[in-house]
Amino acid sequence: MTLREGERIDELNRRGYRIIQNPNGFCFGVDAVLLAWFAEVREGEQVADLGSGTGIVPLLMDARNGCGTYVGVELQEDMAEMAGRSAALNGAESRIRFVSGDLCEASALLGRASFDAVTANPPYIKAGDGILNPDDGRAIARHELLCSLTDVLREGAALLREGGRFYMIHRPERLPEILEGMRAYRLAPSRLLPVCPKPGKDAAMVLISGTKGGHDRLRILPQLTLRAEDGELTAEARAIYED
Amino acid sequence: MTLREGERIDELNRRGYRIIQNPNGFCFGVDAVLLAWFAEVREGEQVADLGSGTGIVPLLMDARNGCGTYVGVELQEDMAEMAGRSAALNGAESRIRFVSGDLCEASALLGRASFDAVTANPPYIKAGDGILNPDDGRAIARHELLCSLTDVLREGAALLREGGRFYMIHRPERLPEILEGMRAYRLAPSRLLPVCPKPGKDAAMVLISGTKGGHDRLRILPQLTLRAEDGELTAEARAIYED
Repeated sequence: MTLREGERIDELNRRGYRIIQNPNGFCFGVDAVLLAWFAEVREGEQVADLGSGTGIVPLLMDARNGCGTYVGVELQEDMAEMAGRSAALNGAESRIRFVSGDLCEASALLGRASFDAVTANPPYIKAGDGILNPDDGRAIARHELLCSLTDVLREGAALLREGGRFYMIHRPERLPEILEGMRAYRLAPSRLLPVCPKPGKDAAMVLISGTKGGHDRLRILPQLTLRAEDGELTAEARAIYED
Repeated sequence: MTLREGERIDELNRRGYRIIQNPNGFCFGVDAVLLAWFAEVREGEQVADLGSGTGIVPLLMDARNGCGTYVGVELQEDMAEMAGRSAALNGAESRIRFVSGDLCEASALLGRASFDAVTANPPYIKAGDGILNPDDGRAIARHELLCSLTDVLREGAALLREGGRFYMIHRPERLPEILEGMRAYRLAPSRLLPVCPKPGKDAAMVLISGTKGGHDRLRILPQLTLRAEDGELTAEARAIYED
């Protein structure tokens, strides 16, 4: 296994899976771990991951389920290439592949109505809001520079077969836009899970799922609290990390 | 104080306040108590309550704050009259009045852009969904027979001055519609509070607030859990009931 300059191998603590990351670039965070846990995949299903970065979401899902096949779309060619090496590192290259391409054209690239599930951990911050990170790769991952929320929802919906499931993690402050956009693209919102950093704190993230062409019957699940007052992981968070 | 046939006086356990209810008609529930707690009112503010029923929401808010003045709009004339007697029963008739009229025309009735806050505990169930309660008054309170969610949001927005606050309690499954409608009427969603009946259960209700002409920066507050596993009220729920 060839590592390029600046890269290292990190343990995923799940069935021995490992991932290649470059600590100077964008490394995966808790949001990717939560999304991979929240998203369901069944035997034989095809899953597309939009903006796959290091490849963490398909890798974790494959480590947990060992069923389904995954295609990640990643604009940054070097990231897609590195993610491909991570798949190979885990012997998962027959189940997980990464395509270097523009998320805004994902359905043209991968085929319309051809996926059972789509996962997305898109940039949270609107272009123009906040100070951009001087490192390009990180700024692209965090800010809607190259794709907007609308792009993610439109392409997610287009990739899914009728009845297919869409899974996303995002910020609570964007929820009105998210729900409106999902409905506009016929992704009926089905489950909303607020994620709180500590007891008594506002949700810092939301996990949301929707069904293409489904019924509009949103459930709000019991909130997930990541850490106790003393800063220790809660039992439910630990279960997710060790899932 | 004259009670009509079938009516009784119930204690509100708050500064000695009481309310007249007819146990054969629609009596207030936990949702009204939660809404009255969630809604803020400051000295000298004017508050409109849409679909005021027994008058419970203004009565509880007045009992807690003793500031502000309230107008409740209630379609059913006998309910509005009974609510007026409840206000008098508590010596609050100078601060709380009830108007018998159609919520769908509330802004024409009470004046556009003339309120600082609006509260609404509207019917939760879409007309046509579920079995209608044979008792008319109860059916009107629970089903969107005479007013829709859109009516409530449109009139709420019209009643509010710029910067005024809208407060509503509703069902989680209607959240996508609620947020979309709020934004359509320039009620920027500001706070969302999921209310769970017990630990580990989906939210059964949501409290939502918005600001007319405000910024779209929704916060999701830590969930409120009403009862512990053993069915006892939680400390936070008890604090609201005894607020």
